[in-house]
This record gives sequence, structure tokens and C-alpha cells, in this order.
Amino acid sequence: MSYVFVNVNKIRNFSIEMFCHHGLSLEDSETVTDVLLTADLFGIESHGVQRLIRYHNSLTKGQVVTKPNIEIVKETPVSATIDANQCLGHISGTYAMNLAIRKAKETGIGMVAVRNSSHFGIAGYYTSMALPHHMIGIATTNTEQIGVPTFGRRPMIGTNPLAFAMYADPYPFWFDAATTVVTHGKMEVYEKAGKKLPSEWAIDAQGKEESDPSEVRRRIRSREMGGILPLGGFGKVHGGHKGYGLSLISEICCSILSGGPTCIHMADGSGEEHTSHFFAAIDYGMFGDASKMEESLSEYLQEIRDSEKAIGCDRIYTPGEQAWISKEEKLMHGIPLQEATVQEIINIAQSLGLTFVP
Amino acid sequence: MSYVFVNVNKIRNFSIEMFCHHGLSLEDSETVTDVLLTADLFGIESHGVQRLIRYHNSLTKGQVVTKPNIEIVKETPVSATIDANQCLGHISGTYAMNLAIRKAKETGIGMVAVRNSSHFGIAGYYTSMALPHHMIGIATTNTEQIGVPTFGRRPMIGTNPLAFAMYADPYPFWFDAATTVVTHGKMEVYEKAGKKLPSEWAIDAQGKEESDPSEVRRRIRSREMGGILPLGGFGKVHGGHKGYGLSLISEICCSILSGGPTCIHMADGSGEEHTSHFFAAIDYGMFGDASKMEESLSEYLQEIRDSEKAIGCDRIYTPGEQAWISKEEKLMHGIPLQEATVQEIINIAQSLGLTFVP
Repeated sequence: MSYVFVNVNKIRNFSIEMFCHHGLSLEDSETVTDVLLTADLFGIESHGVQRLIRYHNSLTKGQVVTKPNIEIVKETPVSATIDANQCLGHISGTYAMNLAIRKAKETGIGMVAVRNSSHFGIAGYYTSMALPHHMIGIATTNTEQIGVPTFGRRPMIGTNPLAFAMYADPYPFWFDAATTVVTHGKMEVYEKAGKKLPSEWAIDAQGKEESDPSEVRRRIRSREMGGILPLGGFGKVHGGHKGYGLSLISEICCSILSGGPTCIHMADGSGEEHTSHFFAAIDYGMFGDASKMEESLSEYLQEIRDSEKAIGCDRIYTPGEQAWISKEEKLMHGIPLQEATVQEIINIAQSLGLTFVP
Repeated sequence: MSYVFVNVNKIRNFSIEMFCHHGLSLEDSETVTDVLLTADLFGIESHGVQRLIRYHNSLTKGQVVTKPNIEIVKETPVSATIDANQCLGHISGTYAMNLAIRKAKETGIGMVAVRNSSHFGIAGYYTSMALPHHMIGIATTNTEQIGVPTFGRRPMIGTNPLAFAMYADPYPFWFDAATTVVTHGKMEVYEKAGKKLPSEWAIDAQGKEESDPSEVRRRIRSREMGGILPLGGFGKVHGGHKGYGLSLISEICCSILSGGPTCIHMADGSGEEHTSHFFAAIDYGMFGDASKMEESLSEYLQEIRDSEKAIGCDRIYTPGEQAWISKEEKLMHGIPLQEATVQEIINIAQSLGLTFVP
């Protein structure tokens, strides 16, 4: 695969133009674009602007709600429950996290559960919204079922990522990870590279080790038995029951609290997504001196980075460090996009009578 | 090892008597006993009454604060920060979780961070306190550093368990797991059994695989390099960076928010522990109809239990199921204690002029 470096503002401007052209408001177009671009900046290509083609296609077919009707169905000073009415997850997610932050400014804590939403991009986008407010950000979402429970062989759990962020210097603590051992995207990477899967990533229809990524993907698409293992792998020896439990914690916070369907009932045959999310903002100043906490955290993270490396390893990263370094680099040198992705964007531009020059 | 089944009330009564004899109030003696016994009932022997001898020895030497002076150092309607002034963690933990629950009754959410505490037993004891109130319970604690960060070889993180519980029928959702692949207790079990450790549990001083549990324990005791790996194992292939990040999330909620020392600075040479904990109670009725949520969760957990088993596996458990089944059995048939533990308890009784007949 060959990569081209594209200036961030060029992609940003085109993406906003594209969403506006399809009928989204300027504000919503900026929001969706910011979520997608942040993924690219953080080095998470799978959730970045390479998805523009999918949105373009869905918007062209009229499958996306372009004028969101986000509804607060229940509210208290510390919480809200939102029905996203099938809008793009980036829009309802940003709306919900902003609401959580506003509530936390008033009361110290804001928690918002969202139902009837759709794929919201990287969970870590929303937690990073809390950082400038000196709040802890928490975000999670359920996903379609592609993971198997410990000792099971039918997909019953989602990859349900957990994200948590807190300000620290020089890099924030920023954690965003699927509760399955890997995501579906990783299967695609191994498939494209023609590589066999490592041990304890996936199982076949019998519940035995599966090393062929194409076979795992085929089974997921056709809703057959077999799937991706939870964080910790097969059985309990390496803690697979822990990843399984963490996935369920996410599901509880998302679908159970919001009143949305659990992951195994999200696809109701209507073609609509019914994804649920959960967001929290915690103003940690309510526990003590916020600056001192940030200093303590920064110091601890630095102590970890400075600690002795395992032989053969030259660096210890703290969660978020690589994403922040990646962001600085890419703002300077552009975002690396596959040539195929660049061509897709050029084609979208032509079909809409717009221009995109990488 | 040979086990004896001992009636729950016999141990309960003796344990309360022992703590009272050492100068704890009846209420505090009951609290500590309840936390220890709950671990045994849930089948977590390592955290149960086999620890009585440790408390008896520390109390005899005057190393335990018997009249706790728990201090609320900062408070809002949704939060509190507590200085436990070195009391037994079971007492400050129960106090803090009760406070979180009281706050959640008023506002919907209560979060309590505790510093200067000590080992509080199983985190899942405190989350189970939220269940009768139809609240989600969350609890976590930092521990001494015995885990290594991804790509590191010096212990810099704790086993820091995460616990989360919500009511469901017939078993609650009850998750309580170390963020390292296994706990220190598991090393003891393998050492006693003379067994080699499975792959990706621990590393030696160089950062390479270590399969000798005695060697891991010796290194931890003498504060040498090497230690237990995070959930997900070595490096990033199986998600070791995820377990490492989850351990840090616990550390942030515990020591960073409460103003206590991080795990690597807990042992200050004074012999005192400086453990930090974090507790939260969430009244989920604020998001919608609590009964419906409990029904949805119960249904989802049942669907998972009923789903197809991997070949060679005859049952899928949901988190908490085994603990609740264990509790029912042990309330009927007694708690299995090693003969050595029973003898220790008899010896304690004799030394205090009390009686214990198993």
C-alpha cells in the first residue's frame, strides 16, 4: 500500500463541503469532520476520513438523517437520557458530551446515556473534549455483536470500547481500547496483508482457535458461529473472562441505561442502526486541588516512562502519548492516506461537482 | 491440602469476638468480619477469614488503628474526599460506600475518594452494597506495585482491581477483577502446588518470560526487577497495553483524586500503609424506569448463558453467577477452610482466652 501525505486543512475543508452539500448544517458538518479527522491525527486510520466514502454513499441513498432531531427524554441536574433519533453518532455524541460537561460545571458530575444513535467514531474523541475543562472524560459505546463470551461460540458481545481521559503534562492520560482482544478493523489489516492471526484472537464455529482472518470476517458477515475473543483470550487462563465482563459493563452503561437494544438486538431488520452510547464528565476539582492532581498524575506518568525497559524494548509509552505525538506530527506534515482513499475522495468531489486537489 | 467445612455463624461469631477483644467497637468488628466472610462465601478464599491470623498478629503488635478517626476533608452534594487516618480498609471502605449511596439517594450519583487507608478486602464487597438500593456500585483500590508496564521490567503498577455491580435476576451482574493478568495470590497457589506459571503471566529481571512462581514472589518481596504482567500479557499483541491502561485508570480514581501517594510511593518506610480507594453509587432510576433496566439486563445475561457453548465447555457463566451460587451453597453447607487455617483460628482463640470449636 502506498501512502500520500495530505494537508489537514485541505481534507477538513473538503469533508465539511461534502457533508454540507448532502444537506447537513455547517455546524454538524464541522462536527462530523472533526471527529473523523481527529482519528486520523491520532493515528487511528480505520476510523478516519477513509470512511468518507461510506458516508457519501449512505447520504446519496438517503439513508442518513441530515437534520438531526436529538431529544432529551429524561433529565436531572447530573444526568440526561437522549434519543438520538437515528442521527450520525458523531453529532449525538458531541451533543451528549457537551451536555455532560455543562452538567459537571454546575454539579461536579454529568452522565448522559444515548439510544437510537449510530457509529460515533473513536470513543476517545469525546473524552478529549473534557480535557480543556479539567474534567475526567469517560465514553463508551456498544457495537454489533462480533465477540464471543468466555466458553461460548456464538457472538453475543460487542467490541465495546472503553475510553477515559484526564489532563496531564506533557501528554494527557488518554485511554481508548476495545474490550475484545482486537477490533474487527485489525482482522481487515491481517486479511489485506495475507497474514495468519496470532493465537487467542478468534475462534471458529466449534470454539477452537481460528487463524484465518478472512474466515473470521466471513462468519461475522453471515452471522455464523465463531468470532473474536474478549481481551484476555480463550477461557480464563489469561483473563478472557475479564475482557468479557468489561464488554458487559460497557453494554450496561450504554443500552441498559439508555433503554436501547442490547448488541444482539441492534439489527432489527429495518436497516437502521440502534447504537447506544454513554458519556460522563467529572470535575475532579470537587475532590481537592485540581492542579495538584494534574501534577501528581504527570509525575507518575513520567516515572513510568523513565522506568527500566524490558530487554529489546527502547521505550515505555503511557496511554495517549503516541496519539498526541502523532497529532503534532500530522498537523505539521499532513495525514498519510492510502492512494485508494485519495482517489475515492477525488471521485466523490467529481460526482458532487466539487473539487479536491490533494 | 485438606479442607474442613465450618458453619458460617461459628466463624462470624468468633471473628467478631476476636476484633472486639483487640479493642475494635462491636460495629467495626461486625463490618470487618462481614467483608472477610463475604469473600469466603463468594469463593475467594485468599481474601477471606484465612487472613484472621494476619489481623490478630498486627493487632497484638499494636500496628492497627482500633478506634478509627475517619475524616471527610472535602465534600459536595455528589462527592466526598476522605482521609481514613490509617484505619482498617474494610471500615473506611464501608463508611465511604455508605456515604456514596446516601449521596446518590439525594442527587442520583455519589462518588467518594479515600486516602490513607489500608487493604480493604474484595472490591466487590462494596459494589454489592449498592444492589439492594437499585444502584450501580463501582469500587476500585490501588495496591503495592507488583505489575510491570507494557515494555517495562520494573514494577510500576498495582494489581488494582475494578469492580462493578448491578442488580439482575436470578444473579446480579457482579464483576470484580484485577487489572493484572493474575493477582499475587495466584502466584502463591502455583508455588504451593509446585506448578510452573502459564505463558505471559510474569517476567524476570530482563523482561523475559518467567515461569517460576517462587522467583516472581522473591523478586516482588525484595523489590527487584520483574513482576506480573498486565491483563493482556506481554507487549501489545494480546492487548497488554489495555490491562496496563486499566490499572492506571484505577490509580487515577484512587490516589490521584484522593491526594494519596501513587502505588510506587505507598511504602514510605514508616511501616504504615497508604492505600487509596474509590467508590461510586449511581441511582440508575434517574435515566429511566429502573425495573425495566433490570429486566433488560436479566434477559441479556440469560441469553448469554443460553447461547451455544464452545466444544468441550458445558456452561457459560455471567459475571457474578459463580459467586452467588457459591454463597448459597456455603450458607447451607459451611465454608471450606484449610485445616491449617482452622488450627490458626483455634490458636488465636487460645491465646486470647476465647474458645473456637469448628
